[in-house]
Amino acid sequence: MTTRHIREEEVLERIERARRRKPRVREERITLAHGAGGKATQTLVEALFVEAFRNPALEALDDGAVLGVDGARVVFTTDTYVVSPLFFPGGDIGDLAVNGTVNDLAVSGSRPLYLSAGFVLEEGFPVADLRRITASMAEAAARAGVAVVTGDTKVVERGKADGCYVNTSGIGVLDRAGDAPALGPGSVRPGDAVLVSGPIGEHGVTIMLARGELDIQADVTSDTAPLNGLTAALLDAVPGGVRMMRDATRGGVATVLNEVARAAGRTVVLREAAVPVRAPVGGACELLGIDPLYVACEGRFVAVVDGGRAEAALDALRGHPLGEGAAVVGAVDDDPSGLVLLKTAFGGTRIVDTLVGDPLPRIC
Amino acid sequence: MTTRHIREEEVLERIERARRRKPRVREERITLAHGAGGKATQTLVEALFVEAFRNPALEALDDGAVLGVDGARVVFTTDTYVVSPLFFPGGDIGDLAVNGTVNDLAVSGSRPLYLSAGFVLEEGFPVADLRRITASMAEAAARAGVAVVTGDTKVVERGKADGCYVNTSGIGVLDRAGDAPALGPGSVRPGDAVLVSGPIGEHGVTIMLARGELDIQADVTSDTAPLNGLTAALLDAVPGGVRMMRDATRGGVATVLNEVARAAGRTVVLREAAVPVRAPVGGACELLGIDPLYVACEGRFVAVVDGGRAEAALDALRGHPLGEGAAVVGAVDDDPSGLVLLKTAFGGTRIVDTLVGDPLPRIC
Repeated sequence: MTTRHIREEEVLERIERARRRKPRVREERITLAHGAGGKATQTLVEALFVEAFRNPALEALDDGAVLGVDGARVVFTTDTYVVSPLFFPGGDIGDLAVNGTVNDLAVSGSRPLYLSAGFVLEEGFPVADLRRITASMAEAAARAGVAVVTGDTKVVERGKADGCYVNTSGIGVLDRAGDAPALGPGSVRPGDAVLVSGPIGEHGVTIMLARGELDIQADVTSDTAPLNGLTAALLDAVPGGVRMMRDATRGGVATVLNEVARAAGRTVVLREAAVPVRAPVGGACELLGIDPLYVACEGRFVAVVDGGRAEAALDALRGHPLGEGAAVVGAVDDDPSGLVLLKTAFGGTRIVDTLVGDPLPRIC
Repeated sequence: MTTRHIREEEVLERIERARRRKPRVREERITLAHGAGGKATQTLVEALFVEAFRNPALEALDDGAVLGVDGARVVFTTDTYVVSPLFFPGGDIGDLAVNGTVNDLAVSGSRPLYLSAGFVLEEGFPVADLRRITASMAEAAARAGVAVVTGDTKVVERGKADGCYVNTSGIGVLDRAGDAPALGPGSVRPGDAVLVSGPIGEHGVTIMLARGELDIQADVTSDTAPLNGLTAALLDAVPGGVRMMRDATRGGVATVLNEVARAAGRTVVLREAAVPVRAPVGGACELLGIDPLYVACEGRFVAVVDGGRAEAALDALRGHPLGEGAAVVGAVDDDPSGLVLLKTAFGGTRIVDTLVGDPLPRIC
């Protein structure tokens, strides 16, 4: 007991020291890795943005900031979309931009209400393509039950953008009955179950293949979809039992779980065999030499729930059309390592680290 | 009297017909003019964005959307900044992005509270420049009393952007005591006075000269500044007397007043001699062959106020450091032309139309 206790304290101290250490960007110039959602992005965000803008809402580093506005509890989030190509099987930059921001609001536990749309257009961009993109945004907004209420358009000279970039910011409201505890990795406890809402990696693989640079054919389409119906179904089914939710976009499920493990100061143990990956996605990842755990989804989220209510949570997800492929993929262990461990199909264990580098640039 | 009455009806009918006519984008490809804030931008916004996203908040076409969120009255706005060069006398893309969005919230009559920041970075962009930009944003946010609470970073390959683009979206709250009537061109009446909060055109001219393409030297710096203190001072000084406020950014004072005249179905009469233009700005405009009325400001706004309270309004503006150069520049006439007329210094009258084309690309 004593030995164990000392070990824990030492580890906690080491983690605390690492936390106090000021993050530093060592590179002199921005690289694609700084936009990949992995380690370089984290360092950039912590060293530059958090350092410059210091405030509690930002420092929580969630996908959405929880704010008080004249008595209302509002969630505010932003994302710029630079996906290439603009049109791909299963979607385009338009519905991606709407769904992505809706999902950031949804996983915070809020009800998404309003979006803004800011366009950067390259001189010479076809008006017909822009029309297609706005139509797709409108359809996605209607499906998610949100309104695009304000916008902005900028045009830059040819060669100063890549057709069209779209920023969507969003406002959601936390108005669920009862005083649900705040969702977030800080409320994760040992014994909690880890779920994913469906098969992973479909969006990222679709984009890679849509670029046509690889000689791989696979029947894959993007999973882009609005998750607010599904998150509401989960919150309704296990009131008070959901610890946190996070959509698994850039950096994939692996990166989300690393954030959870680190913030909670616990170990997340994944069972490889339980992680749902459709055959064409798994096949393409094998050929590309990438792990589906790092591949972005745009219509899947990771949820950590009270272990005793994992079955009810799973039933709620599977009862929704967007959660049919949901699965319990692991659990939270009381070891304070801050690591994600994968129990492989062959009985081994390996550490699943945060994404390093950028194997899949501009997937969103 | 009868003749006059018939004329009015005819004019009103013509305006109504024009309003009902569906706007159409005739070009097949996006041009720089679509981003200039003038006629082409208006048509693009009305034909594509309003058409696709139809909802009352968007159709108001104000700089900010007024929304109900769980009992609170929230204003939501967005702007992407693509200014070139990124650093210029008097500011940079960072404080410009903060001030611009703060100002869109301020002129709606709201109290700006929270901003988001979405970066698109070009691979190879110096980290030191990004640090300078975020420091400038932080300083501007502190000055305006707002917090940057959420953000996003994307990186695109070299040659797919121009260093750094920044989107800022913002949330303000309408929580002033009393039930102030909604601000907007719809409440403008004949006899109202038109004010500008200071000398115009400084930002646009600064950017033009900072590009170094012209062999003109002038002692001009950007007017970029947060206007929320100044708008609050005005609203406090003439409660219920302010009809509308609008910051004169892309398209300048001329374009703002055309929107006012058209929306109000009245004539705005400007006195050229009353429009404050500092000598170096006037001189540069003359050399460049552009009219300062079309040149963007980033720290000035146009206000339409009850004519009987113009003096009180002017005093309030002049009593604030950012409004020292404020002036009454014209009045609203009951002629239903929807036009802006300029009484020139030489006793003539000319029509001041909305901006056509893009004489000053990427000024914000």
